[in-house]
Amino acid sequence: MRTHFCGLVDEALIGQTVTLCGWADVARNLGGLCFIDLRDHEGIVQIVAEPDADMAGNADVIAAASQVGYEDCLRVTGVVRRRQSVNDKIRTGQVEVVATKIELLNKAEPLPFHAHENAGEDIRLKYRYLDLRTPEMQRKMRTRIKLVQALRRWLDARDFQDIETPILTKATPEGARDFLVPARMHPGEFYALPQSPQLFKQILMVAGFDRYYQIARCFRDEALRADRQLEFTQLDMEFAWVGERDVQDTTEEMIRSVFREVMGVELASEFPRMTYAEAMRRYGSDKPDLRIALELTDVAELVRNCEFKVFSDWANHADGRVVALRAPGAAALSRKQIDDYAAHAAKHGAKGLAWMKIEDAAKGRDGINSPIAKFLDDATLAAIVSATGAQSGDAIFFGAATYKSASDFMGALRLKLGKDLGLVADGWAPLWVTDFPMFEWDDEEQRYVALHHPFTAPAVDDAADLRANAKTAVSRGYDMVLNGNEIGGGSIRIHNSQMQSTVFELLGIGAEEAEGKFGFLLDALRFGAPPHGGIAFGIDRIAALMAGTESIRDVIAFPKTTTAQCLMTGAPSPVPDKQLAEVHVSIRPKAQP
Amino acid sequence: MRTHFCGLVDEALIGQTVTLCGWADVARNLGGLCFIDLRDHEGIVQIVAEPDADMAGNADVIAAASQVGYEDCLRVTGVVRRRQSVNDKIRTGQVEVVATKIELLNKAEPLPFHAHENAGEDIRLKYRYLDLRTPEMQRKMRTRIKLVQALRRWLDARDFQDIETPILTKATPEGARDFLVPARMHPGEFYALPQSPQLFKQILMVAGFDRYYQIARCFRDEALRADRQLEFTQLDMEFAWVGERDVQDTTEEMIRSVFREVMGVELASEFPRMTYAEAMRRYGSDKPDLRIALELTDVAELVRNCEFKVFSDWANHADGRVVALRAPGAAALSRKQIDDYAAHAAKHGAKGLAWMKIEDAAKGRDGINSPIAKFLDDATLAAIVSATGAQSGDAIFFGAATYKSASDFMGALRLKLGKDLGLVADGWAPLWVTDFPMFEWDDEEQRYVALHHPFTAPAVDDAADLRANAKTAVSRGYDMVLNGNEIGGGSIRIHNSQMQSTVFELLGIGAEEAEGKFGFLLDALRFGAPPHGGIAFGIDRIAALMAGTESIRDVIAFPKTTTAQCLMTGAPSPVPDKQLAEVHVSIRPKAQP
Repeated sequence: MRTHFCGLVDEALIGQTVTLCGWADVARNLGGLCFIDLRDHEGIVQIVAEPDADMAGNADVIAAASQVGYEDCLRVTGVVRRRQSVNDKIRTGQVEVVATKIELLNKAEPLPFHAHENAGEDIRLKYRYLDLRTPEMQRKMRTRIKLVQALRRWLDARDFQDIETPILTKATPEGARDFLVPARMHPGEFYALPQSPQLFKQILMVAGFDRYYQIARCFRDEALRADRQLEFTQLDMEFAWVGERDVQDTTEEMIRSVFREVMGVELASEFPRMTYAEAMRRYGSDKPDLRIALELTDVAELVRNCEFKVFSDWANHADGRVVALRAPGAAALSRKQIDDYAAHAAKHGAKGLAWMKIEDAAKGRDGINSPIAKFLDDATLAAIVSATGAQSGDAIFFGAATYKSASDFMGALRLKLGKDLGLVADGWAPLWVTDFPMFEWDDEEQRYVALHHPFTAPAVDDAADLRANAKTAVSRGYDMVLNGNEIGGGSIRIHNSQMQSTVFELLGIGAEEAEGKFGFLLDALRFGAPPHGGIAFGIDRIAALMAGTESIRDVIAFPKTTTAQCLMTGAPSPVPDKQLAEVHVSIRPKAQP
Repeated sequence: MRTHFCGLVDEALIGQTVTLCGWADVARNLGGLCFIDLRDHEGIVQIVAEPDADMAGNADVIAAASQVGYEDCLRVTGVVRRRQSVNDKIRTGQVEVVATKIELLNKAEPLPFHAHENAGEDIRLKYRYLDLRTPEMQRKMRTRIKLVQALRRWLDARDFQDIETPILTKATPEGARDFLVPARMHPGEFYALPQSPQLFKQILMVAGFDRYYQIARCFRDEALRADRQLEFTQLDMEFAWVGERDVQDTTEEMIRSVFREVMGVELASEFPRMTYAEAMRRYGSDKPDLRIALELTDVAELVRNCEFKVFSDWANHADGRVVALRAPGAAALSRKQIDDYAAHAAKHGAKGLAWMKIEDAAKGRDGINSPIAKFLDDATLAAIVSATGAQSGDAIFFGAATYKSASDFMGALRLKLGKDLGLVADGWAPLWVTDFPMFEWDDEEQRYVALHHPFTAPAVDDAADLRANAKTAVSRGYDMVLNGNEIGGGSIRIHNSQMQSTVFELLGIGAEEAEGKFGFLLDALRFGAPPHGGIAFGIDRIAALMAGTESIRDVIAFPKTTTAQCLMTGAPSPVPDKQLAEVHVSIRPKAQP
């Protein structure tokens, strides 16, 4: 239907006749002289319809051009010529096409919103195809496409085997709720959509595939936050006969390679490495954003005997933490602003937020403005200022709570202060976080829960050792973190059936339950399972980071809303009862508990 | 953990120390001299543990080697040396590795079946990982992996955009039953799994993506036949601003390219093209296997006035067909064999199967053995023999029924005779089938049904014309056929909302229903939809053809049985009622209609 792309018409074509197809991006009629910006996948070129005695059928062309409306689909034949007034903003700005024929292929009705206006997200999602047509959305989506291409090319070249695993599978409790699919041929039974291909990829290692990958769709029926979707995409990888450094070094090189290829960015030649304990201590987070230079300072030793009870109580608590955070230049914050930070900390679990403004460091106590200063003696005040490195004009914020809670809310405060105070450095800050705890104790359920998942190997090889030291056991899990986002997470897996049974037991999964749910994995581990490990990378998140957008919805062609709906198709929707009968379910009456 | 792959140890490594990981494929203990065939993803190498006074710790090595069992996971360090007795059957057959250290990484329990034995399919599916370890299954799976890689590489190089479409979507009636997923956040509502990304890919063209592809998972809740799965994979493609030859020529070149790359096979430089009508007439099938030279011969004109009522009735019927098939050398068939062919034809709809053995063509009627000969005069007999080209020693089979039915069962008979008589030529016979009818009339429902799907464009551009000639209307659909398999199917789509509404109406889909189900498509067609078309290729089937297997289960890592079960994981399975309550459904009591 066409000889060239609109966006690729260039000076080499001057004098030639071309046929182009595209959308009328803009059409202007200047008294018989018509200009149309014709747009396709590659860009825009200017079409001119002008009176010219030499051109046959020219009146038709002008008539057609003068009726062109916004987003009409056109086919235009014409001759390329050099443009009088060059347009530097577009790639084809040196040339224009003088139309000899204009065909209207499909008339567009008036649009619900204009591409150049700032429409609300709901209407953009309802008419997703109009939104996706904008250059900005095209750029974001194509960044994702390039990312996935670059990953695949890298993996294929290294003999990773791209293997599809089932979508209709068995419920596998990985911490989130499964989507269920009633089985028509098995009344009362259900398939589940996979939360990840975790068990299948481990089975593939037992099956001898050595190195596996899949760009895999995963499903979690969770409450949706701004950055979550019901279905998401991960680069899922698994390696046989490896230790953690094999997985880490390989995938670190892969991430460096795709950033180079897609973004022209050179990431650190060796990613920093940090244990979970160090990350929590210095940054109050297991996914620290290293672009922000601020660090937490432990001050429990300095306030252990002070009169401020909140400090001294937590400083003396076995599981307590008292931590300070220097905020450079923050002495100028108003009371209102400080209250806002306290509210932010509260949202992340703080019961209160103590603060100190260092108005003049040379003046000691007299230079400090703080509601808690009166509870602290001169030496303590000086020690705190010295420990945090605070200067005149800075503020110091304090958290005192359990170790976990104080770390969490001070970590959150650190991020917010970093952004608000303009302390986020440009660029990319990747790192590995390692040595995660194997288990967390769940007070409510009175049992251990797995910090990664139940298939993660402990650092110890001996099941009795693990059982004896479960509380402090460290796992062989690792996360890749980029600019404060966990973009990848993985581990060396348990490859020994006895160790796997022990971990199930510690997690409160009885032998019978384990056999019912994971019997096939326990079997597989008994019949020649090689040591293996892997990782999964969040494609949506990495694509969003690369595209420079906060929302993963911008890099998903047809995303769902936070209320789990597709505004374009109207999914989910009611279905006729006849269809439900075929799959042996009925809708539960609302009254029923 | 290793320095080399077992299967890649070669003469260049002689004298060097290597560390290998793998499974013990075979272990033989010959009185203190132990041989282990160590196998990994790349192949097998022979390990030797032998007494040698010079080697430190050598007794340990022999002790370890003598305890190795079938499929144990081992790590072996040793020195590569030239082998005394070369083994030509394996790539590493020139060398062996003299072990200096053998570590048992994971002991394998006795296996439920041995890789070299011919176990039943059920047990192979239950222990799928053991089955996948066999060289034959590895070869089949890797053929599929190579196919998908080659396709992606070809498409990426040509700027096709790889875009993911949702798995949790809206019910779209495409002829098969949808899988339903109850929506937790919307009580009484359901998502459906996509039967194909059809509407999404059309929307992507409206959204300006120009050329799209996706290796897409699709779902159909149909009765399973041997070659069907609940979920299957297709290469889904769509092109904007194209006619059918653009799609066909591009994808034909793609298929040629991947066959060259994966199989080293050069397909025809231009695929033959055949209309649906011609395919039905000559081969009784819309996916003719052109490797079989047999063709159907219409004989209605010859038997219109004969005394054999079945023939003359159908020959005079407006929608009847009387057709003959020459079976070379089939005069030797026994009565029992002929009965078997009649049963085969009956399975495909035949009410009976008339036949004629041409025992001696020179003898006219006397040389013909046939129960129906007595109803046919000499001239008719001679005309039939002549029309079919039958020779002495051949048989002729006859079908008489509606055009569709006679074509179907005679087409099926043609395939079976072709195979049984050894008339299937070697090699690959691709072709395009085009000009499908737009609609089929459904007697039961008293309405038209779409032969492709409701979004396929008719050959005519005018809605009134289509309405007036619906019965004989031809669509812009096309199939790619290979060796009797429909490996790809597609069409130019309707891009005009009025034409789309007309087609819905002809299909008995009322305006309100159309708006409810396809309103977003009708909208999209109104807001600047370019002419577009596409195609989808069945990856499972193409992979099976390339791998030389009849069953697509051999090229799917974790397939389901014909009873829709995964024997390895045990899916589907019952779920606790609490989980059903969360998604607002309950199991329907069996008694309830």
